[in-house]
Amino acid sequence: METVAFLDFIDHQIAKIDQRMLSRSEGYNPDLGAALEHLLTSGGKRIRPAVVILTGTLLGADEDPLVSLGASIELLHTATLVHDDLIDGSLLRRGIPTLNSNWSPEATVLTGDFIFAQAAEIASEIRSTEVMSLFSKTLSVIVNGEVRQLFSEQKVTSREEYFRRIYEKTGSLFVLAAHAAALISSADDSQVEAAKKYGNQLGKAFQVVDDVLDFVGNEERLGKPVGRDLYHGVLTLPTLYYMEQNPGDEDLSDLLDGKRDKQLVVQVIEKIKSSGSIERALDDACGSAERAVEALQVFPGGKEKEALKKLAQFVVERDV
Amino acid sequence: METVAFLDFIDHQIAKIDQRMLSRSEGYNPDLGAALEHLLTSGGKRIRPAVVILTGTLLGADEDPLVSLGASIELLHTATLVHDDLIDGSLLRRGIPTLNSNWSPEATVLTGDFIFAQAAEIASEIRSTEVMSLFSKTLSVIVNGEVRQLFSEQKVTSREEYFRRIYEKTGSLFVLAAHAAALISSADDSQVEAAKKYGNQLGKAFQVVDDVLDFVGNEERLGKPVGRDLYHGVLTLPTLYYMEQNPGDEDLSDLLDGKRDKQLVVQVIEKIKSSGSIERALDDACGSAERAVEALQVFPGGKEKEALKKLAQFVVERDV
Repeated sequence: METVAFLDFIDHQIAKIDQRMLSRSEGYNPDLGAALEHLLTSGGKRIRPAVVILTGTLLGADEDPLVSLGASIELLHTATLVHDDLIDGSLLRRGIPTLNSNWSPEATVLTGDFIFAQAAEIASEIRSTEVMSLFSKTLSVIVNGEVRQLFSEQKVTSREEYFRRIYEKTGSLFVLAAHAAALISSADDSQVEAAKKYGNQLGKAFQVVDDVLDFVGNEERLGKPVGRDLYHGVLTLPTLYYMEQNPGDEDLSDLLDGKRDKQLVVQVIEKIKSSGSIERALDDACGSAERAVEALQVFPGGKEKEALKKLAQFVVERDV
Repeated sequence: METVAFLDFIDHQIAKIDQRMLSRSEGYNPDLGAALEHLLTSGGKRIRPAVVILTGTLLGADEDPLVSLGASIELLHTATLVHDDLIDGSLLRRGIPTLNSNWSPEATVLTGDFIFAQAAEIASEIRSTEVMSLFSKTLSVIVNGEVRQLFSEQKVTSREEYFRRIYEKTGSLFVLAAHAAALISSADDSQVEAAKKYGNQLGKAFQVVDDVLDFVGNEERLGKPVGRDLYHGVLTLPTLYYMEQNPGDEDLSDLLDGKRDKQLVVQVIEKIKSSGSIERALDDACGSAERAVEALQVFPGGKEKEALKKLAQFVVERDV
């Protein structure tokens, strides 16, 4: 597991979360265990579990339900990635072959289903009907977003749609992490609301930076090709800013109309990079990170609070 | 919806369950609503919801959580069928095109996921952590069974494996229906145990008869081709009995070795039908139905109890 120095003090809990996830394959088909291990040891920064542990510990929750919550959210995330990679036809994630690239589509569908089931089982062990309700609602939001993207010919064409899409895809799980952690602690109503806001803004900053890294990232460190979104005609924030300034760019129009040309992608990336659109997107991400930190005002002091602040900063400064 | 006369008195609750399932697509992508409506109006005898309503009402549960429970179990069942049909490549179910036959695999995967999410959301509305736990464990059992079938080269070759397989595939959901209904009522421990036993034996009888109908059913009434299991090399109870008596049958060996020959399937079906193996399988189903009825002894009297008895009888006498 790759993590960051300011989170070292929760390594022990993150290790317990990893253990709880891996142990789920015991007693099931050995191929499922192999798949789960492959997925869970393929990197991943465990940011969602970290949000759970930090928020919950700061607000007075017990460790065991927090470990369950962190494990269930990371598994829910993993299950959606498995089905997502199948649908996108992605062969690499974090530089490591996806299940989809090695296995049949059938096995990939079922492995995703199995991980959903494990996520739900662990979530049910928390014995909070509120958490179960949030958990299943979040799954609906994520899947509905994917369905809309798949079924509708119409692509994201405005910043408003973009921000809705990244909420469904990423923000909703960050909100679940912070919100549910607060719910199973002794947080008061204003702290619960603050946790939701923190999760939402952190998720937004995280996804915008993810989308920016598709323009400026290092392929080797990212473990996936750069320019993939444009290559697939997917509009993200930097491109949306560029389009607003350059509505008639024909190279970009060609890509969005479905032309698959790697040389064209490289050209358009260069245009977007020199237009200042990357910086505007990063400004938005920094604004979200700041709002995430502001939300923490109603939380008590403590090393977990400082780590939550550093996490917001890390999310926008990372290069991987 | 197709149902049976002795269940007329719960039509009102079954209609509420249908309504609760259909209403789940409101506010989501319209294609999801269309898919859900297609799936839910494609027939289906609503036997699992009937078990929920009858068991729960008899044991003193309120109507509203029973409606939620019935809806969540039927949706869980529906979601697994959607992914199942995709994996099997089935084009027809109950005589009506499967989602898989009209839609892309991607859309089918996501629609299944969406229905899982709706099932979990409704189940969480019951606000019973025990029910949520059973619900997610049942999903694990179902998916694990499918995975084992898909991943292992080794097919079902014994009655023991067959009965394990049909428990995973069918029995587990019938047990969930009866068990969870008892849990949210005022049942005592012995009644909860009896409900589990009823569900288990009813599910076993149901699936054995389903497998028998693949030999002796009417294609038009079934809405699917007869002999499909043998054509795909899947061993069910009548074939297992036949094999025990005729271990050297080469025609059958050819089918099990993967030969796809419709004429050969017809020949082997005739041999199995004239061997008495169908009757032996039906005897087993009748035995299960009797044990289901016996389990009801610890339940109080009432029209729901009589209907549960008739349901066990119906399950083995049905021709569709």
